[in-house]
Amino acid sequence: MSYVLGPNQYGKAENRVVRIYRDTARHEIRDLNVSTALRGEFGDAHTTGDQAAVLPTDTQKNTAFAFAKEHGVTSPEDYALALGARFLDACEAASGSRIEVEEYAWDRIEVDGQGHDHAFARRGGEVRTTVVTRDRASGQAWVVSGLKDLVVLKSTGSEFKGYLKDEYTTLQETDDRILATSLVARWRYESTDGVDWNKSYDDIKRVMLEAFATTYSRALQETLYAMGSAVLDAHPEVAEIKFSAPNKHHFLVDLSPFGTENNGEVFIAADRPYGLIEATVQRDGGSDAGDAWLTVPGFC
Amino acid sequence: MSYVLGPNQYGKAENRVVRIYRDTARHEIRDLNVSTALRGEFGDAHTTGDQAAVLPTDTQKNTAFAFAKEHGVTSPEDYALALGARFLDACEAASGSRIEVEEYAWDRIEVDGQGHDHAFARRGGEVRTTVVTRDRASGQAWVVSGLKDLVVLKSTGSEFKGYLKDEYTTLQETDDRILATSLVARWRYESTDGVDWNKSYDDIKRVMLEAFATTYSRALQETLYAMGSAVLDAHPEVAEIKFSAPNKHHFLVDLSPFGTENNGEVFIAADRPYGLIEATVQRDGGSDAGDAWLTVPGFC
Amino acid sequence: MSYVLGPNQYGKAENRVVRIYRDTARHEIRDLNVSTALRGEFGDAHTTGDQAAVLPTDTQKNTAFAFAKEHGVTSPEDYALALGARFLDACEAASGSRIEVEEYAWDRIEVDGQGHDHAFARRGGEVRTTVVTRDRASGQAWVVSGLKDLVVLKSTGSEFKGYLKDEYTTLQETDDRILATSLVARWRYESTDGVDWNKSYDDIKRVMLEAFATTYSRALQETLYAMGSAVLDAHPEVAEIKFSAPNKHHFLVDLSPFGTENNGEVFIAADRPYGLIEATVQRDGGSDAGDAWLTVPGFC
Amino acid sequence: MSYVLGPNQYGKAENRVVRIYRDTARHEIRDLNVSTALRGEFGDAHTTGDQAAVLPTDTQKNTAFAFAKEHGVTSPEDYALALGARFLDACEAASGSRIEVEEYAWDRIEVDGQGHDHAFARRGGEVRTTVVTRDRASGQAWVVSGLKDLVVLKSTGSEFKGYLKDEYTTLQETDDRILATSLVARWRYESTDGVDWNKSYDDIKRVMLEAFATTYSRALQETLYAMGSAVLDAHPEVAEIKFSAPNKHHFLVDLSPFGTENNGEVFIAADRPYGLIEATVQRDGGSDAGDAWLTVPGFC
Repeated sequence: MSYVLGPNQYGKAENRVVRIYRDTARHEIRDLNVSTALRGEFGDAHTTGDQAAVLPTDTQKNTAFAFAKEHGVTSPEDYALALGARFLDACEAASGSRIEVEEYAWDRIEVDGQGHDHAFARRGGEVRTTVVTRDRASGQAWVVSGLKDLVVLKSTGSEFKGYLKDEYTTLQETDDRILATSLVARWRYESTDGVDWNKSYDDIKRVMLEAFATTYSRALQETLYAMGSAVLDAHPEVAEIKFSAPNKHHFLVDLSPFGTENNGEVFIAADRPYGLIEATVQRDGGSDAGDAWLTVPGFC
Repeated sequence: MSYVLGPNQYGKAENRVVRIYRDTARHEIRDLNVSTALRGEFGDAHTTGDQAAVLPTDTQKNTAFAFAKEHGVTSPEDYALALGARFLDACEAASGSRIEVEEYAWDRIEVDGQGHDHAFARRGGEVRTTVVTRDRASGQAWVVSGLKDLVVLKSTGSEFKGYLKDEYTTLQETDDRILATSLVARWRYESTDGVDWNKSYDDIKRVMLEAFATTYSRALQETLYAMGSAVLDAHPEVAEIKFSAPNKHHFLVDLSPFGTENNGEVFIAADRPYGLIEATVQRDGGSDAGDAWLTVPGFC
Repeated sequence: MSYVLGPNQYGKAENRVVRIYRDTARHEIRDLNVSTALRGEFGDAHTTGDQAAVLPTDTQKNTAFAFAKEHGVTSPEDYALALGARFLDACEAASGSRIEVEEYAWDRIEVDGQGHDHAFARRGGEVRTTVVTRDRASGQAWVVSGLKDLVVLKSTGSEFKGYLKDEYTTLQETDDRILATSLVARWRYESTDGVDWNKSYDDIKRVMLEAFATTYSRALQETLYAMGSAVLDAHPEVAEIKFSAPNKHHFLVDLSPFGTENNGEVFIAADRPYGLIEATVQRDGGSDAGDAWLTVPGFC
Repeated sequence: MSYVLGPNQYGKAENRVVRIYRDTARHEIRDLNVSTALRGEFGDAHTTGDQAAVLPTDTQKNTAFAFAKEHGVTSPEDYALALGARFLDACEAASGSRIEVEEYAWDRIEVDGQGHDHAFARRGGEVRTTVVTRDRASGQAWVVSGLKDLVVLKSTGSEFKGYLKDEYTTLQETDDRILATSLVARWRYESTDGVDWNKSYDDIKRVMLEAFATTYSRALQETLYAMGSAVLDAHPEVAEIKFSAPNKHHFLVDLSPFGTENNGEVFIAADRPYGLIEATVQRDGGSDAGDAWLTVPGFC
């Protein structure tokens, strides 16, 4: 019988690259988690064990660290575009490269009301992400940036009612509930040119948060759609945006057995199960996504 | 400007369903983590907030628990097929359903050399998985089963050499290294009929482990390909198999500064970064995968 | 042979209590993880299975939620003191109670430069903690408050040299390294009276961060001692402070094989192993700690 | 004002030491996570930054790896005793040492019904632990061994009733429930001499599991006490045993709204909150524990 090698990729995952800029006494820090991968004509490595075409994952790691200095890190996107191009140059068998970066934000520690020159505290909250894919044949590059772990909550202004019912329905309709999620958002840029990656990121995050806060919610689906539309509205450089949003249930605790009224004041935050809402908002007649979303984890 | 809703799905994730069979004094246990999702015509929920077509995730949860009794759990696959069909019946707007199940194995506790009737210890080791997708229009169903967290190691019989070198290469070639991975494997069944899901699972796992143990390894890629080929060889009911395998590096510790030789005896097990090898082995001219792999996380 | 029951405690761990204050349109949120425990004369429950003296953990859970409304949550400390007292009232067999609280901070989402009334984003960064212990016989209460997951880093101003060397030493001395830790700090208050818990917390955190930033570091030990001394100096209400601080190693990457100088600019952030420094700073002749530290995890 | 350094310790945590025995073609593997710590006269390191007395954590790491070869690993206990003694020799300022080891078990992969010579699969299930403490002044050593992550469940043979009730009680009494826990057990050996560490470990685990299976349970407390008594009964070399056992709640799902009876057959496995039972069983008039339990995490 005969078998063939189907889709495959390989690389070095989770290189924890920390880049300090110390050209002046006021240091800057970029704190990254970098995963690299190559795709292409690597059949021999699988079928005969011949590694002649394989740029080892160890070399990919070295390159990721070296490029943090040689190319620099002005943004995750710019760094990933450079690194992905390098791998296509270095490895002839590769038809494509894929660089994924997470960035952890740091704040300067305040001393006497001023941010310190070289002491930082990790900000926590959301993690900035990017996935940059390059294709050798077409010469194209795709940038899908985003964030994860952005935990948001509305303590009112959210209802859930009018839904389909069947014989397994027990849920009560509600006019006022807590809506909370730990947001994953990823947006695809129309192009790799002329985008101010850091400025775009900051403002897209601002727009999403404002839309979350100010939209009355009839379902998490509606809230996500409002957030996505607001981003596309404000950012013509964005072609589409995808969300993956767990509905982090906060159940009203029944205090009536203890003679206490609970008027939306005490909740239990539940772990599992959770609703999981995944949705895409796109420009009507927008550009083709190509390989942009290939192997991006957990997105519809 | 006008926006459209792109691909989307919603459901209840991580329902921890525990089913005890207690018809005789000798109990049986099935311990599942069940995630359900629906796809289809849910545009109104997103754009106008109208939930009339939406079968709530709470109802999906209720159904998952009720079906553990009403339908029963003879295997994750059989249970998921039934649950996925139910949701297409219950929710007209759904064009497709997707049920993901993880199963945790338990052993009977030994007492005087005999397995106890109703006392169990969780086995640990690998988790059994399945993703069942149903499409209303075509009436098709796809079953992608697998396992994760199967940690395996070879203390010899593995080399890595003859690879491509460039100016960022520092890795030394080696004739003898530790090869270790925490395996994720997912295989697509050709059909949903006539498969003994439990027997197939057990034997596919056995075949993979034997191939891992007995194949001399010139790279993790080669080992995965050998494992995949062995599965396709022994199991005609499997159409293709995909692996995602971190190369869990075990670095030889340099003991020479202490006057001690380290002849492959002392290693440091590293966390990050790790190589990550992802590959598919398919039958030549095999069947079309359809929606089988849609939104399966992290697979090329 | 005869055995005795030694030290024991029992309770309900990790009650995820969310308290919303919504008396005006401008909501407030307190987001807690509450663990309760009782100690005392519970021998029968262990030896004969008689539960007559046992206040069930389920009841402890109910009380934790009810008290979030009936007593309220102005601070984790105030809430824990009340809850701990309640359990001594409710359960005669208990000689002592122990309430542990974690609090997660939320920020208002900014809309047009203003914090929104009822939309919040979780802040991330450090978690505020308290452990309140009450003893029935003495009528005493101890409050040990603190924080965890405060990740801080200095990109210069840290050396490590002049240490003891033996035949297993390979570490090079350094005049300039990155110093980083994920701080756990716990401080014991002298008394439960007259402390403004929230104000104390905020300022102790500020003092620790300033000391971290401004102290030249000859070792993480010295930095912790400086931080502890600064807290005791500024806060007479604090009797002692304990730190548990992993030395999160950032190793300078050797770029010389690639012809690139690395002048403290590119580091790999390592996971394991890590140095772990634990230390206490106390007032000379300070008060006795009593049961304050009993079963506080992982502290010397 | 004047401050003093209180209790402190420092060391290298989580050294992932893998030792392969390959003297014959049939390899053996010991897979350890080793944390070392020293206590003693390290005041100068904290107060003046003078490191002259400090054996760096990096050297401790080197020693941990070197000893895996030079001393060998016949058991975690034997290895930890040797390593702890070495540190007292190497570091004059240390008054005591503390070595904590976790061991992960591996099984040989079966090929044609035989265990393979050099291919292994990680067993999963419980992790074996030991904490060895040495004191220089007294020359004493204490060995506290144990296990963690042993997840066990009884599907019947467990009740909970007759407990104390108050105005916050809502729990219903039950004659038949699931009892499940993820057990942490730690036992102190009377002596460091003449114990067959591996044999003791295996049999203590067997005794605990048998007691869990065969004891009718009126509460988790009673089950733990029965398990502890059985261990002390069968193992005179054990002075005392401590348990920390979350009551992993499995709640019966109410299927009556769907017209289905649930006779103890379908449960939801809950995450948080969980009951947490901690207890010690000791020999009456047993030996003094000395420093054995100092800084052992989370034990009463």
